[in-house]
Amino acid sequence: MQTTPLQISSILKYAALAHGRREIVSRGIDEPFWRYDYAAFAVRCEKAARALGTIGVRPGDRVSTLAWNTHRHLELFYAATGMGAVLHTANPRLFDEQIAYTLNHAESAVLLFDRNLLELVERIAHRLIHVRTFVMLSDDARLAPGKVGAVGYEALLRTEAAGFEWPVFDENAAAFLCYTSGTTGDPKGVLYSHRAVVLHAMGSALASAFGFTAFDVVMPCSSLYHATAWGLPFAAPLCGAKLVLPGDRMDGASLHELIEDEAVTFTGGVPTIWTMYLVWLDENDRRPTSLKRVVIGGSAVPRAMAKTFRERYGVDVLQIWGMTETCPLGVIATPTPGLAEQGEETALEVIWTRQGRLQFGIELKTVDDDGEQTPRDGETSGTLMVRGPWTIQRYYRQDQDCVDADHWFDTGDIATLDADGFMRITDRKKDVIKSGGEWISSIDLENIASGCPGVKVAAVVGVPHPKWDERPVLVVEAHAGANLDRAAIEAYLLPRIAKWWLPDRVFFDAVPMTATGKIDKKVLRAKYQDCLSTGGRA
Amino acid sequence: MQTTPLQISSILKYAALAHGRREIVSRGIDEPFWRYDYAAFAVRCEKAARALGTIGVRPGDRVSTLAWNTHRHLELFYAATGMGAVLHTANPRLFDEQIAYTLNHAESAVLLFDRNLLELVERIAHRLIHVRTFVMLSDDARLAPGKVGAVGYEALLRTEAAGFEWPVFDENAAAFLCYTSGTTGDPKGVLYSHRAVVLHAMGSALASAFGFTAFDVVMPCSSLYHATAWGLPFAAPLCGAKLVLPGDRMDGASLHELIEDEAVTFTGGVPTIWTMYLVWLDENDRRPTSLKRVVIGGSAVPRAMAKTFRERYGVDVLQIWGMTETCPLGVIATPTPGLAEQGEETALEVIWTRQGRLQFGIELKTVDDDGEQTPRDGETSGTLMVRGPWTIQRYYRQDQDCVDADHWFDTGDIATLDADGFMRITDRKKDVIKSGGEWISSIDLENIASGCPGVKVAAVVGVPHPKWDERPVLVVEAHAGANLDRAAIEAYLLPRIAKWWLPDRVFFDAVPMTATGKIDKKVLRAKYQDCLSTGGRA
Repeated sequence: MQTTPLQISSILKYAALAHGRREIVSRGIDEPFWRYDYAAFAVRCEKAARALGTIGVRPGDRVSTLAWNTHRHLELFYAATGMGAVLHTANPRLFDEQIAYTLNHAESAVLLFDRNLLELVERIAHRLIHVRTFVMLSDDARLAPGKVGAVGYEALLRTEAAGFEWPVFDENAAAFLCYTSGTTGDPKGVLYSHRAVVLHAMGSALASAFGFTAFDVVMPCSSLYHATAWGLPFAAPLCGAKLVLPGDRMDGASLHELIEDEAVTFTGGVPTIWTMYLVWLDENDRRPTSLKRVVIGGSAVPRAMAKTFRERYGVDVLQIWGMTETCPLGVIATPTPGLAEQGEETALEVIWTRQGRLQFGIELKTVDDDGEQTPRDGETSGTLMVRGPWTIQRYYRQDQDCVDADHWFDTGDIATLDADGFMRITDRKKDVIKSGGEWISSIDLENIASGCPGVKVAAVVGVPHPKWDERPVLVVEAHAGANLDRAAIEAYLLPRIAKWWLPDRVFFDAVPMTATGKIDKKVLRAKYQDCLSTGGRA
Repeated sequence: MQTTPLQISSILKYAALAHGRREIVSRGIDEPFWRYDYAAFAVRCEKAARALGTIGVRPGDRVSTLAWNTHRHLELFYAATGMGAVLHTANPRLFDEQIAYTLNHAESAVLLFDRNLLELVERIAHRLIHVRTFVMLSDDARLAPGKVGAVGYEALLRTEAAGFEWPVFDENAAAFLCYTSGTTGDPKGVLYSHRAVVLHAMGSALASAFGFTAFDVVMPCSSLYHATAWGLPFAAPLCGAKLVLPGDRMDGASLHELIEDEAVTFTGGVPTIWTMYLVWLDENDRRPTSLKRVVIGGSAVPRAMAKTFRERYGVDVLQIWGMTETCPLGVIATPTPGLAEQGEETALEVIWTRQGRLQFGIELKTVDDDGEQTPRDGETSGTLMVRGPWTIQRYYRQDQDCVDADHWFDTGDIATLDADGFMRITDRKKDVIKSGGEWISSIDLENIASGCPGVKVAAVVGVPHPKWDERPVLVVEAHAGANLDRAAIEAYLLPRIAKWWLPDRVFFDAVPMTATGKIDKKVLRAKYQDCLSTGGRA
């Protein structure tokens, strides 16, 4: 057999030859919509690869972006990696110091950024040790070189010929450099190899996973800079699906416009986006007509959200779980005939309360504190370990592997696995609340509290308690106009939880979010650190 | 990233963990039906791997089978390859000398065979140079050691413990050894690597290809010994589909029994099988109720067959093309939105008249006699070249690669490619009819003639002609009771073809088939060699 390397450029070449007329539509950043097809996209990627060469990028070099979900960013996904460079997709939502840290750590000499991030780039430019070329992802008319003297992306492409011959190289070469959001310590870099990205795209596009066909219209609402938007920019063209890119506008009205105008069938993103979207639909009395599936990940899916999508709009919700360290897909909550036989209600209950089910390519196990494997009984929780061809072996520029001798990576999650391969995260290791020697799952409590009418977001953290070591505290962000008080929340919770799980305090406040759309528990823990220091009920 | 090798054992492990309760049902060879699930299947595979070790099989050794589509043969697909041996699936439909040739060429020391092939095995045993152990795939009660002193498969398994630790090794190691059917010269061996088999399974299971989900029930009617039954034994468990194995009974009644009793949704095989099945359905006034898709390959799909499946039974026909040298999938005739927009009639016309469309993982091009690439315009035909990660590099035990410097393999087919990636085979290089300097496609003529009412099989060969070099001759095998004569055939053909394509002779006769279900043109050419030697009309 031939040992053809699995390279990202093969996806581009395939889409251009087999789905050349299928469209890509992108919202611009203060520019009109951009609309072309995979054949034209491939030509632009060729020109972009040449342009990167012209400004001095060589195979193996790191190239950084600060950009949203646009066609130009997508072109760089293929152009930079296809020519053999490594694309570092910096996260514009991090703090300035963190962004600068990742660019310096990556040793990028080139930074390409969206026009509305110029101010950010100007602000951090003096900290960037290696960057010598700034490129604004802009047309000529709107180009603003700013204090960094940026050149224009379209100007660069215009002088380049099409017809770049994508080089053949080792499939284990690095393609992307993604940094973890770094809730503790400096962000850590994860290098995605070409092999990992292609296998991840094939695995996630399987009918038993995302199941894309050429008839799908896929809109990634997870950020391109965040673990390559779950690999959707690769899985979609691999199957000839139309791609719709929402730019930087994730508000309900903007998303709905694209969903309706472009007949989106599949979209995905963190729960926060869908909370906003559902509120917008409700307030404006609109409904999505083409949408069939919404994939939600990044945090647990609130049950009420899944129920609304399904029962009110006929949209199936697929929950997924993964991490930057797994490219990022780990599991997808797909149904099985065994489940279906138990009736729709039971099936949905399982689908909505599990993070997902084993997919081919990812191995999972749970272990106890001694590292011994715990049973796959759906009951016994343990530390979740993962391994497989798109799982990390070692963080970028570290001396040691971050996996054990058998390649198992410790996810930092506490989870159960069952006999059908369903996985349920009961907590982050560091978020689990240890009350009097017993564990309380902050995630379970949040999920249940989210179902209480009027609750928009519910967050639970453990705070120190003189008697019980730790006790749960609930922070509720209510919907506008909701009439909620502690008594109402408790009345809702009590029939649904063990009594000793009842939070010791309920605060009504805005819930802080991290740059990646997760509840920022670090902030909450700091804020409520001392609220039980005098003890109190439990 | 981890460089986890792509091994066949990973599919087995995945199916057992994620789809452990999904069934496998197999018709026995003079035994009752066998029914178990992927979890129990995995345990039997572990025992079988141990049993192979017990009878002396070591990693790298070749192990041969002469067996039908049964669960025991399927177990060997995983057991032999998983332990690191190479499974040679000999073709019992070949001539004795050819079977013996392949076993000797493979240097197999072990031959496992189905009970009803004992006579064949006894007949060729004296020719087998390396075989030292004969194993009958049989339960104890029906075991017949015969002249070869065969041991029983179930007896071997019974003494083995479960829990075999599948070894980790290089993904480029050989897993299967499949021989071409050898219409010219000795059969040639193609070694399938673990990497090729796993990538092929992932590629073919994509939603945009076979699109299996856990809700599918897949019945492979292509032979397990013929290019691993199109890889279905791997693609199905990879997605958790139920597997139904029809044993050696491909008659209409037997297939229909399984389709109905097991709720088969997907099946596939050569056209001959479906011709028989459609006749049986018609004669018995029955219809398949669960069947959704039939994949047909090996020869061009007669249009009338596709039409009957679709219009009468609501079953979609997917045409595929491939060869032993491509593991075997090359292209699959899947629809596209662009086609769908042109209306159902046009879409079906394209789907039914093309061998298929480019799938991710396989590259195709057509070249002229000078090796220059011909345009992808759907019109210009050229020699079809193929390459990719599941394409051959070199035949087994040969000194030279069988591909050019850029890894392109010459398929021996003449084909067109179009801008949407559709491929249409116009002929085999050796079957194309050269009449007065122009080419006549024997396949096009056969397809059209097959549509004539009363025609069961139509075969066209070129035979020498004193004036035109070659002229087409048509051999028609009619349905029982059909009232056909030359005039009726010509009246049907004339409005549908260029006049100079009209066959010079029409013979009414049985059409001979090869061991792999294709029209045996070698036999026909020999038989009708001289029928135009005195010239005649053209």
